[in-house]
Amino acid sequence: MAAAARLAARARPISSPNPGVGALLVRDGGMIARGWTQAGGRPHAEAALFAASEESASGATLYVTLEPCAHESARGPACADVIAEARPSRVVIGQKDPDPRTSGKGIARLKRAGIETVLLEDAASAASLAGYLSVRLAGRPHVTLKLAMSLDGCIALADGTSQWITGEAARAHVHAQRARNDAILVGGGTWRADRPRLDVRLPGLEDRSPRRLLLTRGVAPEGVTVINRPDQIAELDGVQYLYTEGGAETAASFLREDLVDELHIYRAPILIGDGLRGLGGLELAELAAAHGRWTLTERRQLGSDEFTAYLRTR
Amino acid sequence: MAAAARLAARARPISSPNPGVGALLVRDGGMIARGWTQAGGRPHAEAALFAASEESASGATLYVTLEPCAHESARGPACADVIAEARPSRVVIGQKDPDPRTSGKGIARLKRAGIETVLLEDAASAASLAGYLSVRLAGRPHVTLKLAMSLDGCIALADGTSQWITGEAARAHVHAQRARNDAILVGGGTWRADRPRLDVRLPGLEDRSPRRLLLTRGVAPEGVTVINRPDQIAELDGVQYLYTEGGAETAASFLREDLVDELHIYRAPILIGDGLRGLGGLELAELAAAHGRWTLTERRQLGSDEFTAYLRTR
Repeated sequence: MAAAARLAARARPISSPNPGVGALLVRDGGMIARGWTQAGGRPHAEAALFAASEESASGATLYVTLEPCAHESARGPACADVIAEARPSRVVIGQKDPDPRTSGKGIARLKRAGIETVLLEDAASAASLAGYLSVRLAGRPHVTLKLAMSLDGCIALADGTSQWITGEAARAHVHAQRARNDAILVGGGTWRADRPRLDVRLPGLEDRSPRRLLLTRGVAPEGVTVINRPDQIAELDGVQYLYTEGGAETAASFLREDLVDELHIYRAPILIGDGLRGLGGLELAELAAAHGRWTLTERRQLGSDEFTAYLRTR
Repeated sequence: MAAAARLAARARPISSPNPGVGALLVRDGGMIARGWTQAGGRPHAEAALFAASEESASGATLYVTLEPCAHESARGPACADVIAEARPSRVVIGQKDPDPRTSGKGIARLKRAGIETVLLEDAASAASLAGYLSVRLAGRPHVTLKLAMSLDGCIALADGTSQWITGEAARAHVHAQRARNDAILVGGGTWRADRPRLDVRLPGLEDRSPRRLLLTRGVAPEGVTVINRPDQIAELDGVQYLYTEGGAETAASFLREDLVDELHIYRAPILIGDGLRGLGGLELAELAAAHGRWTLTERRQLGSDEFTAYLRTR
């Protein structure tokens, strides 16, 4: 299932507004076919898999990160029907689909067709579907907050100079993250100070530059969507994954409203001292309230910088 | 030589004011004997080694992190003579001794005795002798600056609450570091705010609590040595290793005067926002001046906290 979840990552974020799903067909420990949700959301992973496979599914197990859909649409048949027709011996499903048109019905239809069906509810599938599950269950996109800081937590010199805290490898990693998100958001102060391009400047990924959002009380510049308050991210259409790049007040406002699901920290091996901080006030009443909220999920060296990712634990 | 350097770590800081040296006697790839500088600086590592060994050194190689001393003293014979008498086939020396009573003379005496002698000048020996070499060459102790911070670089809430940023494993690690230093220093503000005990509260190491120093313009509390300026650490007798625990202004004053050799950062997976910062102003003119000064030497997980150590590169 972890391999299917890795396949699902290929669909992020191009599957929006559909979930990015991964599927693997396995027999006797060997892979027969694979599929993932295609651009725009169709074909679904299962349909892509069976369309690409010339072998019979007989005796094979299908691993799929999300419950196969049970609803037909003008854009294609229900995946549960596609699978029932292909007749694998067993279907292992990562996560139940919270979409009421499918929830439980996809599993029921497979079982009715006489196919052994297992619901795993594993962490890898859930992580690969984070944006979709967040929209469905929390009514808002999955939010990643990026902070690029010195060892002592500064994001710029006191005069605002921030080019550069981190090195080239870290900056390329940021551009790759932008390409994995449906939208990027900065605050009005950062917009006015830096006029950031907020695009993906990586060879081959230029057309993956996400939608640009601005958190401000002011008017929208051309080509930019404005929201006035963090909670308005719930009203964004077709955005499963939102990448927040600061500044300090914008980051703090998302954290205060508990709207950050993932932290991405780029840490350069430098000390600044009295520079600008990465975060504004969080209104913490006591230190205990700060603990236990974040768990380390990834750490890697990017040149001389360290990248760490944290997921919220509650 | 790396193994000899690890032995030398056992002498830190109890060998003060003598260098903490490690020595290994090896024949045909197997260890025959080992020694390290004993408490108070005597016996020296080589004397300790030969005193503990019952075998002949014939045909063996002696690895020793520092050039064997060439000067006799009331406290013992010159190590170069002890070695010449034991007659190993070969002596491999990590670092030349900057002490003018020995410098080069120890090596010369061994060569005169017909023993093949090699000077390695390796990094592991140099690191294990950091305090001694700093006193001899820079005229001041080796300084480690400790910072215990949140992900966003805060060392306390805005009201000063700092118990606790880091967890038990990190705090125990700090106590172990205290035991590895001859003296601990804090600033006057931290002293008045926290009344820190600055002792080693680890089973079996209680008697290893280092000398306590205070950077202040005020008067010395009982049992505490006062210095008024960071550069006065040059006047401390018998201190090879100094551990600086803050606060922010004290840390910044040492950094501004370029008196910090090693950074120890304990990072808790929490966000604080508008808390107290770990560092005061560093008077950086530009970001480029902050880069290239620190290189990562160690990273380890301590419970949910991350410990990283950096050595200055210039």
